[in-house]
Amino acid sequence: MLIVGESLNGTIPKVGEAVKSKDVEFVRKLAVDQVEAGAQMLDVNAGVAGANEVEDLAWLVGVVQDTVSVPLLIDSADPKALEAALYIHKKGRPMVNSISAEKQKLDTVLPLVASHDCSVIALCLGDEGIPQTSEARLKLARIVLDRAQAAGLKLEDIYLDPLTLGMGTSDQAAKITLQTLRLIRQDLPGVRIMCIASNVSFGMPNRRLLNRTFATMAMAAAMGVDAVMIDVRDKAMMASLIAAEALAGKDPYCKGYFRAFRAGKLGT
Amino acid sequence: MLIVGESLNGTIPKVGEAVKSKDVEFVRKLAVDQVEAGAQMLDVNAGVAGANEVEDLAWLVGVVQDTVSVPLLIDSADPKALEAALYIHKKGRPMVNSISAEKQKLDTVLPLVASHDCSVIALCLGDEGIPQTSEARLKLARIVLDRAQAAGLKLEDIYLDPLTLGMGTSDQAAKITLQTLRLIRQDLPGVRIMCIASNVSFGMPNRRLLNRTFATMAMAAAMGVDAVMIDVRDKAMMASLIAAEALAGKDPYCKGYFRAFRAGKLGT
Repeated sequence: MLIVGESLNGTIPKVGEAVKSKDVEFVRKLAVDQVEAGAQMLDVNAGVAGANEVEDLAWLVGVVQDTVSVPLLIDSADPKALEAALYIHKKGRPMVNSISAEKQKLDTVLPLVASHDCSVIALCLGDEGIPQTSEARLKLARIVLDRAQAAGLKLEDIYLDPLTLGMGTSDQAAKITLQTLRLIRQDLPGVRIMCIASNVSFGMPNRRLLNRTFATMAMAAAMGVDAVMIDVRDKAMMASLIAAEALAGKDPYCKGYFRAFRAGKLGT
Repeated sequence: MLIVGESLNGTIPKVGEAVKSKDVEFVRKLAVDQVEAGAQMLDVNAGVAGANEVEDLAWLVGVVQDTVSVPLLIDSADPKALEAALYIHKKGRPMVNSISAEKQKLDTVLPLVASHDCSVIALCLGDEGIPQTSEARLKLARIVLDRAQAAGLKLEDIYLDPLTLGMGTSDQAAKITLQTLRLIRQDLPGVRIMCIASNVSFGMPNRRLLNRTFATMAMAAAMGVDAVMIDVRDKAMMASLIAAEALAGKDPYCKGYFRAFRAGKLGT
């Protein structure tokens, strides 16, 4: 399971400030902290209101790649920012966040992804927004998969994100995502699944409890996910994921679980 | 979701000692502690090697019911002990632990259950033991369900337990149980599901982490379970279950989650 660190995101106020003020030390520390905590890839998002995202994202990618050696998940709604960042990405194989079944994404971001050596997150999202049923999300997943493969992407380079609305919006929000995960695993063999845990708890108290519980439930619904994007510095989350991998039968002889135990990573 | 406290179990050395020595205060405290921690039913098991289980279980049921007002899950492999306990049970409707597809259980325990006003745990277990595949467990579930209903039990009084072997025995043990839960929910509509979490971690380090992670994964696999048997005094387990209920869409408006948060029950 690929573990992506979510924290270098300009929509988080402190990170946004650091991007605006080009605070190299802040960015370096956050990159190092995440890699030391177990991140195998780092999301980088320079989306700060009123700023120049093309320049900011290139700056962010540059600083992070001068600091750590993991590849990046390049995260932007702006195709120009994505393109500039992809050109300067140099360590390993990047991932792009994201394409979807929206016409604009298929027309602008998909060709960009297809012309670079990278993988991509594909959202179950269309021009009408995020569907309220798992069946409708599966339908969008099929559309974006078909289009991405037609554009030349390999199935194993597409990480489907079923999307998760916040529990504060609807008490059925997480359930629909879990049902979508189950359907995707059942009906779309071979496709990879990305679980992004934090959205589920937006606006709710005790977010970390919801995030880690949701991540492990997602692993049960999909019988293992291929990638997660989380706050890797959250030790209880990391311990839960290690336990869930073992319980989902993805950790031969529970070696990873025992190793984490010996390293004191499972908590008390 | 019915929450059953697992701790009054004679196979736990301290509890076994208390049963042997008829330590009323020990039993009372363990009963009160569990009910105060949120147990809505208490498992009582007086299985102590070399002792008289019929007398011991009757004593245990008597002490517990003189102390707390929740109904009991009467837990014994001895039909005589079950029968004696059922006769003296007086507070609410008891549950029996357990029947299975084993001939001996169908011949001796099932008629007992059918002739008392109680519910029952039905194990996915046959004369050949616990099957290694979810399909074979489902087959046993069908057999025990058919036999129990033929004997007059109502579907809603039968709590299927898919059974869980320890992760120390096989790294696929939990996965098979999760797959069985999914199959049961899909193929046996209307039947209730009991999740017994503790067995999964037998012989493993950091048992509580595995137990709570497994319980929440079980809730995802079955899209909510109807009953859990756990150590209710484990606060992290209780917080995880409350979060998982909300995430599984079983907590209207997340009211239970917010209530637990205000009561300080969700941890930090």
